[in-house]
Amino acid sequence: MTTYSSKPDPDRIWQDLTTLSSFRDPDSEGWTRRSFTPAYRAGRDYIRMRMKEAGLTVSQDAAANLIGRRPGRDRRLPPIWIGSHTDTVQGGGRFDGTSGVVAALEVARLLKENRHELAHALEVFDYTAEEPTDFGISTVGSKALAGNLSAEMLALQDGTGRTLAAALREYGGDPGTISQTARKRGSVAACLELHIEQGPVLETAGNILGAVSGIVGVRRFRVEVEGRADHAGTAPMALRRDALAGAAEMILALETIAAACGEPESCVGTVGRIRIAPNAANVVAGVAELNAEIRTLNGQLLEELSSRFLSACRQTAARRDLSVQLSTLSHTDPVQINPEILALVRQACEEVTELTQEITSGAGHDSNQLACFAPVGMIFVPSREGRSHCPGEYTDPRSLALGTEALLAAVLAVDGRQAAPGELP
Amino acid sequence: MTTYSSKPDPDRIWQDLTTLSSFRDPDSEGWTRRSFTPAYRAGRDYIRMRMKEAGLTVSQDAAANLIGRRPGRDRRLPPIWIGSHTDTVQGGGRFDGTSGVVAALEVARLLKENRHELAHALEVFDYTAEEPTDFGISTVGSKALAGNLSAEMLALQDGTGRTLAAALREYGGDPGTISQTARKRGSVAACLELHIEQGPVLETAGNILGAVSGIVGVRRFRVEVEGRADHAGTAPMALRRDALAGAAEMILALETIAAACGEPESCVGTVGRIRIAPNAANVVAGVAELNAEIRTLNGQLLEELSSRFLSACRQTAARRDLSVQLSTLSHTDPVQINPEILALVRQACEEVTELTQEITSGAGHDSNQLACFAPVGMIFVPSREGRSHCPGEYTDPRSLALGTEALLAAVLAVDGRQAAPGELP
Repeated sequence: MTTYSSKPDPDRIWQDLTTLSSFRDPDSEGWTRRSFTPAYRAGRDYIRMRMKEAGLTVSQDAAANLIGRRPGRDRRLPPIWIGSHTDTVQGGGRFDGTSGVVAALEVARLLKENRHELAHALEVFDYTAEEPTDFGISTVGSKALAGNLSAEMLALQDGTGRTLAAALREYGGDPGTISQTARKRGSVAACLELHIEQGPVLETAGNILGAVSGIVGVRRFRVEVEGRADHAGTAPMALRRDALAGAAEMILALETIAAACGEPESCVGTVGRIRIAPNAANVVAGVAELNAEIRTLNGQLLEELSSRFLSACRQTAARRDLSVQLSTLSHTDPVQINPEILALVRQACEEVTELTQEITSGAGHDSNQLACFAPVGMIFVPSREGRSHCPGEYTDPRSLALGTEALLAAVLAVDGRQAAPGELP
Repeated sequence: MTTYSSKPDPDRIWQDLTTLSSFRDPDSEGWTRRSFTPAYRAGRDYIRMRMKEAGLTVSQDAAANLIGRRPGRDRRLPPIWIGSHTDTVQGGGRFDGTSGVVAALEVARLLKENRHELAHALEVFDYTAEEPTDFGISTVGSKALAGNLSAEMLALQDGTGRTLAAALREYGGDPGTISQTARKRGSVAACLELHIEQGPVLETAGNILGAVSGIVGVRRFRVEVEGRADHAGTAPMALRRDALAGAAEMILALETIAAACGEPESCVGTVGRIRIAPNAANVVAGVAELNAEIRTLNGQLLEELSSRFLSACRQTAARRDLSVQLSTLSHTDPVQINPEILALVRQACEEVTELTQEITSGAGHDSNQLACFAPVGMIFVPSREGRSHCPGEYTDPRSLALGTEALLAAVLAVDGRQAAPGELP
C-alpha cells in the first residue's frame, strides 16, 4: 500500500461543506437544497468547479449524475467510483450526502497532490436526487445507472405538473437516452461511499468509523384516501366519511406493525408526509394522501410487513366507507455487503483508527441501486446524537477527515488488489 | 302586514349569486373566495355597487363590515339588520353566506320598488370574514360588533406574518377604533339572516324553509405537538418522538369523544386541518399542528367534551414523550333563539310555504355573535344532499326566492310589531 505524506485536510473538507451548505433555499428552514431547485443547481456548479480544480474531467450522464473522472494507468480496468449526493430533504442538514461528495473530492485532490497514478480510473460522483423527490421516488441517478429508472418513473409529475424527465433535462440530463446509461455487471470495479451514520450507534459505542455490513431495503407507498368533504358542523359523526380520521388510523397501524415485527433494531415504518384537502378547520377532510415507508434488513420480512400494512389500510377504508388507492412508489431490496469488500473497507478503517466497528445502515443509499451491478462498500462517520434529516445534523471535522482517510485507503486497496473485477459479484 | 305586488325575482337573485361566484381564486378548486384576498375585495366591490343600485347608503365600519343603509320613518327606532357574509372556505361553494347577502339585497330592492318606507331603518350587512381565517378565528366582523374582537385577536398573524389588524385596514376597516364599533344591547331591533342549511334535514323532510330554533356553540382549539424530527430509517421505533403519530391519536380521540357524547344529532368534533414539519417522506415528523373544533347545542356539554379532548391530548403527549401546546382559538356559546323572534320567523316562513319546520343549526354563524346584543332570527333553505363547504354545494333558485320572501315577511313583521326594542333580550 502506498503511504501518503499528506493526509486529508480537515479545514479544506470543512470549507467545502460550509460553502456547499450556503447554497440553500432561503424560504425553507434548515439547510434545504432539494433536488431540481435553483439551490441544487448552484451547489452542483460549485462541485463542478471543485472537480475541475482537482484535475478531474467533468461530465454529466443521461440521468444528470455529475461525474469527475481521473484516468487510470491501465485502460482495460473498470473505474472505481466514489461519491454520494448533494441534494437534501426539506429542512435537512449540512452533512447527509454532502460529506461523501466532499470526501471524494478530497481523495481526488490528495491523489493529484501526491501525483499518485492509480491503475484504475477514478470517478467522483454526485449522484442525482438521492433523497425522496416531489416525483415520489428517490435515488434517481443511481436507479438510472442500475437500469431501474423506468419510463413510468420518468413520466411522474411533481406538484407543478413538471415531469421527472423534464426536470432531468433542465438539470443537465438526457432522459431520451436513459436506458443506455445503465451499467453492466463488472463495468465498475467498486463503488465506495462515505456517509454520515444518521443514527446513534457509533457515538454510543464511542467509535469513529463504521464499515457497513448491510443496508436496509425500503418499500415506499402512496396511500390516497378519499372520503367526502362535509361541513364540520352539520355532518353527524355517524354519517361522516372523514379521510383524515381514516388516515390517522393507517398512520397508527403502520407504527404498530413496525414496532411489533420482532426486529426492533432494524425494522421501522414511517408516515412522514401527509396532505389533506380541503385542509380547512371547519370542513371534514375529503381527501388524505400519505407517503409511507417500511425498512428492514430482511427481504422476506419487508414483504410481510408491507402486505400487513396495505391490508390494514384496506380494512380501515372498508370500515369507514372510504375509498383507498395504494401504490408502491419504490421498492429497494436490502443489500448484504460482499464479504471481500467489507473486509477491505474494515481494514482501511482500522488502518486509520482503532475506533472502528461493523455497522448496518438503517438508511437506504445510492449503494442499494449500485449493488445491482457493482460491489459496494460504505464507510460511516458518527452523527451527533444520531440526528439526521434536520438542521441540527452534525459530524465533527476530525471524524470527517478520518473517514476521508479511510476512503482513500479503501480506494488504494481496491486499486491494488489482485482479484479481477469480475470476481466481485 | 303590507301586501306586495312584486315578489322576489328568482332570476335576479340567481344572477347576483352567479356574478358573485365569478369572483374567485383562480388557483384554488371550487368557488374559493377567502376573506382578505383579492377575490374577496372584488366580490365586495360588486356588493357595494348592488347596494347603491338598491338605493342604500354604503359604508364600512371599523371591522370592515360592509353596510348598506335604508333610513326609516322613525329615527328613534333602532335599525333592523339583515345580511350574511361573502367569504368562503378554501374549496367552498357558491351559496354559503352569499345566499343571505343576495337575499338581503333583494329585500332592499323590493322595498325600494314598492316605495315601502319602514318605521325602522334597514341595514344590509356583509359581515367581514365569517369563515375561519388564516388568523385562526372566524366571524371577525360580528365579533367586533359584539365587542368580542380583542387586541390579542387583532395581533394574530397569518402564514405571511400579516396581522389581522393589518388585513382589516387593507380591506376598509379601522382596527384602531374597533372597540367603538361594539353595539349596546337594544341598539338593534333584530338581526335576521337567511342561510343555507348546510345539512340534510330540510331535504330529507321534504321541506323548503326552516325557522332556526337554536345554533350550536363552537370551541376551536389549536393543538401544537412537538416531537423530534429523525431520519425515518435510523431512528428505532421505540426511541421515536413522532409528532404525526401523536397527532393521529389525538384526531381519533376527538372522533371517539364526539361520537360517544350521547347527543349524536347535534354534537360533533372535527380535526379538519393539519400541518406537519418537515413533511418529508423519509423524516419522522418533528412538529404537528392541528385545528380542532367541537360543537353542541348544550353549553355544559361543550365544556365537558372540550376538557375531555384536551386531557386526551395531554395524555397522548405524555405517553409519547411529546410536548403539546393547547390553545383555545375561539369559544362561541350556543344560542337559543328568543321565543318571540322564533314565532315571528316561523310565521313569516309559513306565510310563504306550508313546507316549513323548526330546525337547529349545526353550523355557527355571525348570529352567535350578534345574539350578544340583539335578538337574532335565521331562516334556512335546503342544501342539496346536505353538502356544504365544497364545490358541489347547491340550493335551487325557487327555494332561494321563497326564503327571500320569508325574510322580507320577517322584516315587515319586526317592523310592525308592537313591542319596544328593549323587550327583546
